[in-house]
Amino acid sequence: MKILVTGGAGFIGTHLVRELLNRKNEVVVVDNFTLGHQENVDCFKDNSNYKFYNIDIAKTEEFCDKLKDEKFDIVYHLAANSDIQKGGRNPEVDYNDTFMTTRSVLELMRRNGCKNLFFSSTSAVYGEKTELLTETAGDLKPISYYGAAKLASESFIDSYTYMNDFNTVIFRFPNVIGPNLTHGVIYDFTRKLQNNPNELEILGDGSQTKPYIYVLDLIDAIIKFTLEIPMKQGIEIYNAGVETATNVTTIANIVCEELGYKNVKYNYTGGNVGWKGDVPKFQYDLTKIHNAGWTASKTSDEAVRETVRYIKEH
Amino acid sequence: MKILVTGGAGFIGTHLVRELLNRKNEVVVVDNFTLGHQENVDCFKDNSNYKFYNIDIAKTEEFCDKLKDEKFDIVYHLAANSDIQKGGRNPEVDYNDTFMTTRSVLELMRRNGCKNLFFSSTSAVYGEKTELLTETAGDLKPISYYGAAKLASESFIDSYTYMNDFNTVIFRFPNVIGPNLTHGVIYDFTRKLQNNPNELEILGDGSQTKPYIYVLDLIDAIIKFTLEIPMKQGIEIYNAGVETATNVTTIANIVCEELGYKNVKYNYTGGNVGWKGDVPKFQYDLTKIHNAGWTASKTSDEAVRETVRYIKEH
Repeated sequence: MKILVTGGAGFIGTHLVRELLNRKNEVVVVDNFTLGHQENVDCFKDNSNYKFYNIDIAKTEEFCDKLKDEKFDIVYHLAANSDIQKGGRNPEVDYNDTFMTTRSVLELMRRNGCKNLFFSSTSAVYGEKTELLTETAGDLKPISYYGAAKLASESFIDSYTYMNDFNTVIFRFPNVIGPNLTHGVIYDFTRKLQNNPNELEILGDGSQTKPYIYVLDLIDAIIKFTLEIPMKQGIEIYNAGVETATNVTTIANIVCEELGYKNVKYNYTGGNVGWKGDVPKFQYDLTKIHNAGWTASKTSDEAVRETVRYIKEH
Repeated sequence: MKILVTGGAGFIGTHLVRELLNRKNEVVVVDNFTLGHQENVDCFKDNSNYKFYNIDIAKTEEFCDKLKDEKFDIVYHLAANSDIQKGGRNPEVDYNDTFMTTRSVLELMRRNGCKNLFFSSTSAVYGEKTELLTETAGDLKPISYYGAAKLASESFIDSYTYMNDFNTVIFRFPNVIGPNLTHGVIYDFTRKLQNNPNELEILGDGSQTKPYIYVLDLIDAIIKFTLEIPMKQGIEIYNAGVETATNVTTIANIVCEELGYKNVKYNYTGGNVGWKGDVPKFQYDLTKIHNAGWTASKTSDEAVRETVRYIKEH
């Protein structure tokens, strides 16, 4: 099959591209290295099934024009700003990198007659809900520009799917971690401790608690619901996650333990959120994805520990 | 108060501007006459409290630049493509006129420090639901580009409201009719019968049933929830509508009756929708707006009859 992966040089994208190439697909990657890295995709460049375009996907006409002769069996749309904190400082970031990239992908699919779409959405679409999050929850009020841009993307995907008979699978990702992580709390802690092994600044009060999924578990689920189970006309939304969750202080403990930092003094900045727009606690109802036959192999704590070990070894 | 009305030369906008001026506010209208008309606003031009800008709001930087020195107490954002059928033929229309206009308004408010926003959303955000529509309904999957652009607008409004401490009121409008209507089924039937008084083509099977609200009832509600009841920080969403509904064949009967056409042969195009992306039947749960102290004065049938009478007299 001929497959497009947007954001294919990014953290999650790279792992997906590797798996798709392993499965003998023809893979076209589009990325402009905003968060992705050239080094992430260097390993694919001798594979004759691999092709790379450096394009800013947010520029709809340029993107559609450059790919106008490509006919894809499936499009995996992963390109987005994934740094919520960065987006909070300038709404332009998520408008362009998270929303406009989706709009461009939908136009490409409509114009080129592509039918199968996988979209990476997020828990941030739910906003500040205290109950277990179900895919059909109402009253969604995202508080970050990132969450808004993803929910706006879902909205446009809904109408394009209906109007153009797409087969669409949407995963709402929790925090995703693992090899080649580019940002986030584990990444931050590791950096900070390298600079100062005695003290660690922790945003908020350390009680922020979220599910962390190991990236290879997530790739396994993506493959299952797009290549193994046939995609169907219409939209299927899944919370893709783990039932367990890890709080920020536990992450600090695991990072210190695995990297061998002892007697580190934690300095909490205070408050129950890391930054404005942060949702401090959430947990998914995973009934739908479990019933469909998929469960993550690692718990949230295991995912954190495995990620820190990877960082240690590289 | 100094007030901005986007789309203020349009069907609903004109009525709102008139009421705001009657109440001695300073009113700035932005419109580019895509659906609005110069004649609609000619009557305001000698009012010293009235100011008009011809700007394409979808062009964010141009819009923000031209209004950069204006500080508004309230922004009523009505500008949108409201012709769902037209939008269905080209997704660019609703992307630009319905979504991008919202994005521009939000940026203007953020940059200029405006805090109070009224947004005109739509029943189309709910998609194809058969149950009574409540504001907190989940699993919203708009099927038209118009509904998607409005739901995407709501999403961005959510995050801008949270991040910038806006006071926001969103009304989800049903079909709105009355003086100066620019399109829709009543408008179409009147036109068609002028061309051929013996036969009337009716899209679908005539059973499409929707609530029609009289525009002056809607203006009354908008004024109440923005000027009479103080706006509060955060977002309040209301279904603004009437409990009754009117089917398309009944509309044809009322049009024929009021305009004096007799023995008209109805030719149904068939199917249960007027066009792809049309939601054939819906009804609101109006508990929230009723409990807040507002009820429409006219039923759906009365609104239809009154609108046809207005057309007859003008």
